[in-house]
Amino acid sequence: MSEAPDIEALDAEDALANRRADFLIPGGVIYLDGNSLGPLTVRARDRIACAVTDEWGAMLIRGWNEAGWFHAPQRVGDRIGRLVGAPPGSVTVADNTSTNVFKCLSAALAMRASRKVILSDSGNFPTDLYIASGLADGLGQGHELRIVAPEAVKAAIDDSVAVMMLTEVDYRTGRRHDMKRLTAKAHEAGALAMWDLAHSAGAFEVDLTGAGADFAVGCGYKYLNGGPGAPAFLYVRPELQEHVRPLIAGWMGHAAPFAFDLGYTPLEGIGRMRVGTPPVLSLAALDAALDLFDGVEMAAIRAKSVSLCETFIREVERLCAGHGLRLVSPRDPEIRGSQVSFAHTEGYAVMQALIARGVIGDFRAPDVMRFGFAPLYLSHREVAAAAAVLAEILETGSWDRPEFRARAAVT
Amino acid sequence: MSEAPDIEALDAEDALANRRADFLIPGGVIYLDGNSLGPLTVRARDRIACAVTDEWGAMLIRGWNEAGWFHAPQRVGDRIGRLVGAPPGSVTVADNTSTNVFKCLSAALAMRASRKVILSDSGNFPTDLYIASGLADGLGQGHELRIVAPEAVKAAIDDSVAVMMLTEVDYRTGRRHDMKRLTAKAHEAGALAMWDLAHSAGAFEVDLTGAGADFAVGCGYKYLNGGPGAPAFLYVRPELQEHVRPLIAGWMGHAAPFAFDLGYTPLEGIGRMRVGTPPVLSLAALDAALDLFDGVEMAAIRAKSVSLCETFIREVERLCAGHGLRLVSPRDPEIRGSQVSFAHTEGYAVMQALIARGVIGDFRAPDVMRFGFAPLYLSHREVAAAAAVLAEILETGSWDRPEFRARAAVT
Repeated sequence: MSEAPDIEALDAEDALANRRADFLIPGGVIYLDGNSLGPLTVRARDRIACAVTDEWGAMLIRGWNEAGWFHAPQRVGDRIGRLVGAPPGSVTVADNTSTNVFKCLSAALAMRASRKVILSDSGNFPTDLYIASGLADGLGQGHELRIVAPEAVKAAIDDSVAVMMLTEVDYRTGRRHDMKRLTAKAHEAGALAMWDLAHSAGAFEVDLTGAGADFAVGCGYKYLNGGPGAPAFLYVRPELQEHVRPLIAGWMGHAAPFAFDLGYTPLEGIGRMRVGTPPVLSLAALDAALDLFDGVEMAAIRAKSVSLCETFIREVERLCAGHGLRLVSPRDPEIRGSQVSFAHTEGYAVMQALIARGVIGDFRAPDVMRFGFAPLYLSHREVAAAAAVLAEILETGSWDRPEFRARAAVT
Repeated sequence: MSEAPDIEALDAEDALANRRADFLIPGGVIYLDGNSLGPLTVRARDRIACAVTDEWGAMLIRGWNEAGWFHAPQRVGDRIGRLVGAPPGSVTVADNTSTNVFKCLSAALAMRASRKVILSDSGNFPTDLYIASGLADGLGQGHELRIVAPEAVKAAIDDSVAVMMLTEVDYRTGRRHDMKRLTAKAHEAGALAMWDLAHSAGAFEVDLTGAGADFAVGCGYKYLNGGPGAPAFLYVRPELQEHVRPLIAGWMGHAAPFAFDLGYTPLEGIGRMRVGTPPVLSLAALDAALDLFDGVEMAAIRAKSVSLCETFIREVERLCAGHGLRLVSPRDPEIRGSQVSFAHTEGYAVMQALIARGVIGDFRAPDVMRFGFAPLYLSHREVAAAAAVLAEILETGSWDRPEFRARAAVT
């Protein structure tokens, strides 16, 4: 059994601790589910009230100009771009992650028309795979979605691959791909590389430019705290943008949307990947939530993320030994995102018991308890306390109750 | 010159007048742009604050179950369904109108694989045409978008047509297609019929079932008052739903999204047309805005719409004669939606002068001033007053100022 880390010392030297005051997390809650839905902030709450009353209510249709609604997707896109190593003008906010996967993947396939394989892995989030197989079938051009194990991706890259489509961090285990090395391998084989940053953006440093990624998508409502169903984002490498012909060619991606021409002319740059009218109110919440990243380097967030994750693993292993928990996340932080998952045969009920005690994580079948660590609002003390609650639940067997075994519709 | 209608009598017998109190329209504004962006309501304002604070803030991830976020798209879809003659289970709220056009059109083309023509008209909203041409090109299966004049659609329907894709009401002129007759003609030719209800839903009676429409899409932020960028809706005729294979096959359309299977199995029914995580906050605003339609029959809305439009035309023609206005909307209400458009060579500047006086309509190139009439919040007195302001602007020439000629980025 290892020694307890000096929790108080870790919190005392936490330069991000001052961010917590902006998060409206209910009393008694230790929120370890920011990898699924980030919490509300004061800024987002106030900003959306402003967007509703002072913009929509007072400006009405003039909000498109006077409140900057029209350009918000690009402006907010640039704010996200800073967090993922993307230069200004290479990220736009639009639609949801699934639709952005479709948009990027279809564009990528058109740029490698002679190749027919979409390479992905079984650790990808299922919607990415559904989108890819639906597109492969629907195009009717002989495309194939090839799904291999995460550790087999590198060897599976060959010159039949049009697009390597991966999610950087596995949503169940937190295992993190080597974006730079895999992208380089894909490029060596003449393939394009597309990355889903759903569990990366806002959680740690991402360097799309340095990695040479061609396309990327990501989620607005996880570590970016944009609110339930916040719009997603997408990235296209600047050098590729002029070659992208959107399969979903909507008016917001038109060079002159308010000229109402009958023919489509794509906007210069990333804007052509926009489709329809942006969800102004949801976008306002995301925009405001990003304020919490202002003045923070992602390296500092990453350092605290690692510290939180290491603390949690150490505390759980120290306090819960012998209760059948198995770490399913990589032990090495270098290949782990900002989440820690433990498997337990009664993981579903144990997680419900945790939630009943105010420790909110979530569960993924068949047996994985997920704990996400968002450095902007979590302290080491909370993380240690969560581990202690888990230990108590396992020791007392208090998870073994019918109400904790009953499955909710949406888990 | 015709006589002035008895404005006060028309308002006195207006059964919808009690709805006005819920609309937060700024003082001094006569809002004739609800065909572009409906105004804020007390209900939407309060509901979104609740969704932000009491749901997102307090429930966090549990909102998916406890606040009903997961099923909201179908529940709200059914509310819209009642307004457009669609049975429960045939409408879902999702994405934006452009993306829904893409989803429905791609599904329809797959159901008529041996045919290659998408038939539309030059009165369609441009994004529908962009989507269609982008899809036709991108599929690489030899599809062709054939655009004819609105009055030539009927004659252009032949057995080469896979899908007839039309917007019921022309966004510039308000000219309304005969949905039932054109759909019947399309069906006779073996084609599918797809309707964009952007300027129909919430404005007058639509009978998708009676017309036999196969697919439909529509907008949440115009006459439905769902807020800027509100999610859109789509309809698939119940008999077709099981044959629809979505080209954008996302996890929210999966039969068991939280089983996280690697393979895609579409949900039974309209839900398969969902793609990604719904924009919960924007959806809440739309849901609440629909409360204003509760207890109202669309026939009553239509009757008042016709009365408002007729009043406006009569007052404008009575007061503005000789000032170069030309009615570009059909004079016959039977073939007109809930908008009236007048052309004027200086239409842009005249509209800016109107807006400066609090009469908010909008302008569409080259010379069309659009006035939308939303029966839930407009009175005949306002409509007559708007005509009087227009007359004064034209008589005094007060539109002829540099600030009224300067074009805004988004018009």
